[in-house]
Amino acid sequence: MSQEDSRSEFAFIDWLRRRTPSAARVRIGPGDDTAALDWPADTVCLVTTDMLLDGSCFRLAEAGPRRVGRKAMAVNLSDIAAMAGRPIAAVVSVGLPRAGGRALAEELYLGVREIADAFDTAIIGGDTNSWDGPLVINVALLGEAVPPGPVRRGGARVGDVLLATGSFGGSILGKHLDFTPRVREALALHAAAELHAMIDVSDGLAADVWHICEESRCGAVLRAEAVPIDPAAFRMNDALSPLDHALGDGEDFELVFAVAPADARRLLAAPPVPGVPLTAIGEVVEQGLWLEEHGQRRPLPPKGYVHELT
Amino acid sequence: MSQEDSRSEFAFIDWLRRRTPSAARVRIGPGDDTAALDWPADTVCLVTTDMLLDGSCFRLAEAGPRRVGRKAMAVNLSDIAAMAGRPIAAVVSVGLPRAGGRALAEELYLGVREIADAFDTAIIGGDTNSWDGPLVINVALLGEAVPPGPVRRGGARVGDVLLATGSFGGSILGKHLDFTPRVREALALHAAAELHAMIDVSDGLAADVWHICEESRCGAVLRAEAVPIDPAAFRMNDALSPLDHALGDGEDFELVFAVAPADARRLLAAPPVPGVPLTAIGEVVEQGLWLEEHGQRRPLPPKGYVHELT
Repeated sequence: MSQEDSRSEFAFIDWLRRRTPSAARVRIGPGDDTAALDWPADTVCLVTTDMLLDGSCFRLAEAGPRRVGRKAMAVNLSDIAAMAGRPIAAVVSVGLPRAGGRALAEELYLGVREIADAFDTAIIGGDTNSWDGPLVINVALLGEAVPPGPVRRGGARVGDVLLATGSFGGSILGKHLDFTPRVREALALHAAAELHAMIDVSDGLAADVWHICEESRCGAVLRAEAVPIDPAAFRMNDALSPLDHALGDGEDFELVFAVAPADARRLLAAPPVPGVPLTAIGEVVEQGLWLEEHGQRRPLPPKGYVHELT
Repeated sequence: MSQEDSRSEFAFIDWLRRRTPSAARVRIGPGDDTAALDWPADTVCLVTTDMLLDGSCFRLAEAGPRRVGRKAMAVNLSDIAAMAGRPIAAVVSVGLPRAGGRALAEELYLGVREIADAFDTAIIGGDTNSWDGPLVINVALLGEAVPPGPVRRGGARVGDVLLATGSFGGSILGKHLDFTPRVREALALHAAAELHAMIDVSDGLAADVWHICEESRCGAVLRAEAVPIDPAAFRMNDALSPLDHALGDGEDFELVFAVAPADARRLLAAPPVPGVPLTAIGEVVEQGLWLEEHGQRRPLPPKGYVHELT
């Protein structure tokens, strides 16, 4: 009597439900009108969402659906990391092209699950649609703040040192799809020092440092010689220098954060996450955004990727 | 020094932040890496998401952006209503066509806010993108369960009466955009009786009753003479009867729920929400989905709107 032939969204939802493991805090998983989570007392609930669109945030034909699904979840995990939070559970919506939608949906889901599983994040629901347009995938992720609370963009203080994980530039050559969100690093740093302000680098290093400045009502100097440039930035082979790529490319999904100088020295002397480089890239000043190179400061345009709305 | 000219996503985010009122439980609103909510002790967190796509779930040129924004939020509110929950806060993602995206974004947001405000739901964040495709909008909504807990699809018992709010059919003529989600009705019903199972009718009355049956491992009989047919179903002017429209159209966003016969009699005698009709449309049986008309039962195909994934 079921309407649910193998081609319907419901068959796909059944497929999903069979693959959804039970998780401690998930009271209701996929298949009802909403999901339901137990939420511990006195825990702040973090919420973030990101939409990825074929041709804009990725190219399905080049990346393949599994990496697209992985990226859609990973960018949200990176936002939770930027607050030094712990990811808990996500819902995933897709708009699928009509032809081949079912196989595409399964591959996307496997990519989502790959990175969600790596960070103990449950997939608790979603919405499956087909349409005549290109692939769209949206993830909304819930996390919980970790004491002493979420680390915001505002809070950097003049004299703070700006530290960064990893390296920057040339992410388009692969890292924008295959990065590992810095969730563990953020939790370890949050436990090891008082993080005054933090952001994950999605728009671009200069642009995202400027976001910290705007919210903290301060400025920043980046030191050209100190910015860790990713090997990929040297392979870009265009008119821009590797440093330009490091400052402007974006989608590095590294963490940049501001700490007091004594904390910076301590973290650099004994990085809390072995294997992930930590670098002092500059410092917080009264105002403006500056690049210091060979001892000279010049204004640094906070350029990065911007969605133009005309 | 700001990169934020009037055409960028950041200018739009500034516009949003200026229009975002503070709300009691919102610790961090739009403009950081994630939003943050205080969550009361021992309260189950409900999570739902819906993606609406131009040309599939609405036609932007006909509906206009404000009604589209309103619908994107309203369908999520309806899902929270289906659990008898209380909506709390939402994040909204958009994929905007490049030309005219900013004006479109503002109108969408005003539509979202219109219905969110009506249900004390805060907009706490989102993601703004532009691309070469048609408009996409995704809402993820958090709610809280209300004692004695969320009402699921499973839980209907043989002998239960199926009750419905409002009327069915012909929603494409307007109600699918302009409906009022049954949040208040659900809370009042939940307080007034033990709701064994509940769903909001999005796929179609027959299809959604069947969803209750599948999750409750039972069957149902709908009485043709009892199904409340919306006046719009009589104006459809096609080969289908008004009853066919009521059973199959979907997007009525009314509630259908199962209660014990004594509770049904009590609710019908004194409906907890004056002004919203409550009708007994059938009953829960052992198995199958049936339509009873002139005393005869015949199988009722649980047809409704299905996204085909080929």
